[in-house]
Amino acid sequence: MLLYTYPPAPNPRRLHIFMAEKGIEIPTVQVDLAKGEQFGEPLRSVNPSCTVPALVTDEGVVLAQVSAICDYLEELYPERPLLGRTPLERALVREWTHRIFLEGLMAIADVFRNGNPAFAKRALPGPVELEQVPALVERGMKRIDVFLHVLDAQLAGRDYVVGDAFSMADIDAIATCDFLGWIRKPVPDDCGNVKRWRETMSQRPSTRA
Amino acid sequence: MLLYTYPPAPNPRRLHIFMAEKGIEIPTVQVDLAKGEQFGEPLRSVNPSCTVPALVTDEGVVLAQVSAICDYLEELYPERPLLGRTPLERALVREWTHRIFLEGLMAIADVFRNGNPAFAKRALPGPVELEQVPALVERGMKRIDVFLHVLDAQLAGRDYVVGDAFSMADIDAIATCDFLGWIRKPVPDDCGNVKRWRETMSQRPSTRA
Repeated sequence: MLLYTYPPAPNPRRLHIFMAEKGIEIPTVQVDLAKGEQFGEPLRSVNPSCTVPALVTDEGVVLAQVSAICDYLEELYPERPLLGRTPLERALVREWTHRIFLEGLMAIADVFRNGNPAFAKRALPGPVELEQVPALVERGMKRIDVFLHVLDAQLAGRDYVVGDAFSMADIDAIATCDFLGWIRKPVPDDCGNVKRWRETMSQRPSTRA
Repeated sequence: MLLYTYPPAPNPRRLHIFMAEKGIEIPTVQVDLAKGEQFGEPLRSVNPSCTVPALVTDEGVVLAQVSAICDYLEELYPERPLLGRTPLERALVREWTHRIFLEGLMAIADVFRNGNPAFAKRALPGPVELEQVPALVERGMKRIDVFLHVLDAQLAGRDYVVGDAFSMADIDAIATCDFLGWIRKPVPDDCGNVKRWRETMSQRPSTRA
């Protein structure tokens, strides 16, 4: 297998924490998003969507959605399960990873990409030119605040986002909370559960990269 | 189990096609989105996000993301698998369902919700008031066109979106293509593969509701 990636970015980071937790190592090709390398070769021929991470399997199939890559790796390396241990736990991990992505990570991305001159005509990832929409900055900030309070309520009295074990839901929430730093947005003071949980999570070596 | 739903809407429709294909029947509570019933009881107490579908499991746990509900039902009812039959096929179904949702269904939703006076202050699903962003109508139309050509390329020489079997990727693509009707957008003439595939899919009883 071969992994095209740029570990500092939020979506690759989700995958790298997942791999570190499971002890998976895959040869990588670095694609420096800060230099726009995702729009050139070698990535563009591998993944025309020009996004990372992109995993090329041993069969030569390309997977470029973090959820798909993690599903695949969880099947190949079932030790230390991170996508749930029972049908209901797996469903809840899916429920929360989807919500965290949609309501959290994407809202932060809206603020980051639509309010940053470096992303002119690149309001969404990929090769298609899309103008920035300034209204999405304000809307994104409002959505982020709602999301963080939803996450805070979920973490009340809990050590992990789902059930009683560390899972992909924690990983996605970690990457999302840390992405807040890119827009200089702190976790609100009244989200004490999120702050406590994030502090605990920082003890895991996988999250320190 | 108990399912809160409104079958005509695109996200519930994904689930209902899935259930019909597998022969799953679950008692339902209808929540008429056209009348705004999602913001009142009984749904609001069950799912504070005020979205359907929402499945209450026998344990009393609420799942409200279609991906999570389908994962759960696939484990309870493994006959006629719709989420893939091998690790790689499962990963590809996940890859495509995520892309279809993100690049297709959400782009159509942007056009539908931001350009329709009935959705004033409801630019996204849920109880939080969000102003419409007119720029998302034009952007959405552009994204839809890109998506339909991506889907067309994927369907070249194929009967199904993933591999050689009907799967959730087809279901999500069906619900997404039919959602185009809500914004009066036809599949472009140069997307012949999509047209052929959709025509074939219409022979499945599950898709005719």
